[in-house]
Amino acid sequence: MQKKIKVVQFGLGPIGLESLKLAAEQSWLEITGGVDIDPAKIGKSLADLTGVASLGGAKVFPSLDALFAAVGAPDAVLHTAGSSAAASFAQMKPALERGVSVASTCEELIFPALKTPDLAREFDALCQKSGARIAGTGVNPGFVMDILPICLTGVSRDVQSIYVERVVNASTRRQPLQAKIGSGQNPADFRAKFAAGKAGHAGFQQSVALLAHAMGWKLDEIRESCEPVVATSRVVTKFFDVAPGQSLGIHQKCVGLVGGETKIKLDLQMYLDAPLPHDAIVVKGRPDLNLVLNGGVAGDDATVASLINIVPRLLAAPAGVRLMTELAVPAWRNPRG
Amino acid sequence: MQKKIKVVQFGLGPIGLESLKLAAEQSWLEITGGVDIDPAKIGKSLADLTGVASLGGAKVFPSLDALFAAVGAPDAVLHTAGSSAAASFAQMKPALERGVSVASTCEELIFPALKTPDLAREFDALCQKSGARIAGTGVNPGFVMDILPICLTGVSRDVQSIYVERVVNASTRRQPLQAKIGSGQNPADFRAKFAAGKAGHAGFQQSVALLAHAMGWKLDEIRESCEPVVATSRVVTKFFDVAPGQSLGIHQKCVGLVGGETKIKLDLQMYLDAPLPHDAIVVKGRPDLNLVLNGGVAGDDATVASLINIVPRLLAAPAGVRLMTELAVPAWRNPRG
Repeated sequence: MQKKIKVVQFGLGPIGLESLKLAAEQSWLEITGGVDIDPAKIGKSLADLTGVASLGGAKVFPSLDALFAAVGAPDAVLHTAGSSAAASFAQMKPALERGVSVASTCEELIFPALKTPDLAREFDALCQKSGARIAGTGVNPGFVMDILPICLTGVSRDVQSIYVERVVNASTRRQPLQAKIGSGQNPADFRAKFAAGKAGHAGFQQSVALLAHAMGWKLDEIRESCEPVVATSRVVTKFFDVAPGQSLGIHQKCVGLVGGETKIKLDLQMYLDAPLPHDAIVVKGRPDLNLVLNGGVAGDDATVASLINIVPRLLAAPAGVRLMTELAVPAWRNPRG
Repeated sequence: MQKKIKVVQFGLGPIGLESLKLAAEQSWLEITGGVDIDPAKIGKSLADLTGVASLGGAKVFPSLDALFAAVGAPDAVLHTAGSSAAASFAQMKPALERGVSVASTCEELIFPALKTPDLAREFDALCQKSGARIAGTGVNPGFVMDILPICLTGVSRDVQSIYVERVVNASTRRQPLQAKIGSGQNPADFRAKFAAGKAGHAGFQQSVALLAHAMGWKLDEIRESCEPVVATSRVVTKFFDVAPGQSLGIHQKCVGLVGGETKIKLDLQMYLDAPLPHDAIVVKGRPDLNLVLNGGVAGDDATVASLINIVPRLLAAPAGVRLMTELAVPAWRNPRG
């Protein structure tokens, strides 16, 4: 029998708890603890927090250092605590310094050199020294709008441009997501929030940057916009009751340009009752490629799946700040061995 | 400027020549020679054979040893000389012994442990010692029916079964492919040839084996069948004139079973004038995933593209007999840098 991989869960919000539940199903993982800053959670057992008895005596600690002191260092940290690369690097420093690798859902870690190039270099050097790896993963960013189109170009002899669109019916998603996209808000308020960087889908520009990096395109500019989708009639979900004229969600676009030419265009519609949810990819080149994922890739299940599935590939990769494109082909990891 | 990767082309049939032409477009590759057993080609310049002047003085040698003696060892061999793993290993031994890596379109190399487990182990040991890598790649096998569905499961928290279908309009393909699928033959003759292992699409069982390996499924059995598609009316292509009652091509199926349950099912229809060409993938699990590549992935262009694109990822991989699933995510390699 192979030795189990020891992991801890950092961040015990809704996604963190889902990650823990999925991790608990894996015969190849051993969960040794959790970390959260919420005083209501510190000291509790993960079994109590999740309702999964097999998590046994593993407990919540207020910091990685406290956890390491109590139960020793694991092989990897599952990190689900925010979108900012700078904040995530800072949170993960105690792990990375000890050579403990980090798989994260942090959106900006999909391509940390975009917003935090100095930090990315600094932590890459730190990881090279300690033997740790850190990588961001997820569904979007992390799969449908970046890794999947990149994988598709593996059979391309020429690529001229990449277009990806994603339509998500937010009515089927959890409350925090419906809130995040501005459901029920005044459209003008939402626009102001987006302009202030406080609303909209995170990680969009990172997907564009990762695509450009993989294609060897040096972008002159990345342009992003986000418009509210406004209700024309009343829409009711489990969590929101939206009147005509209020926001149902977002229509966000991001383009990457080289010499005035649009090489990459991402188009995301995520709103309540969006019809015909799907993901679609068009690669113009030789050959032209036209991919559709009917129904799209459902969000939260797939997000925690991508996080657990990446662990074996991450631990097999060279030390450093790693991109998904530097790891082996994504794949489901069979929980039974 | 980065140092160029030196490559040689082994096998100068139609695919080998296409590979050379595409390789000649890559600023990051340097082509130092070719190998073929055809006396009519030996001694000729690659520029003359391909019509690509930039191939300059590189010549055709009768063997790898002759090439190495004349121009030294390259970094990698592009191998396009047959479907048999045993034959390919034997052909590539002089390269692998010297630590020269091999990227191959050999179908059985997609999963060499299926038909030649002892050879796969022996050559893995040889590669580990010399520092070389060898891997098979391609479109099918190598992408649409194995690597692409595997990549898709990177967002799966559970996978129950995988179904892939591929419909290829063979009328749009080159003469050897139309001949290989039995165009214009008597259906009974084609059935006899398939039963004798002398017809049908190569590498199908290897795709099933690679999928099972990636999913952690131990298959009890792989079952393959192939039926001719029979013309109901006359079909004329650039190369064939097929009368009613004669074969237009193949309908080949391959399934992988665990405990009597079909976990993997591949369905390939490749025949003249096939309507609605496409590739489709259905992953049953959590979430269900339903992918369609409208029009499918065109064959020959994509085959040589996959071969050239794999080179940088192969050279970055650990020494050994490698599977595509052990290399970084497939991606187009920009010819300009």
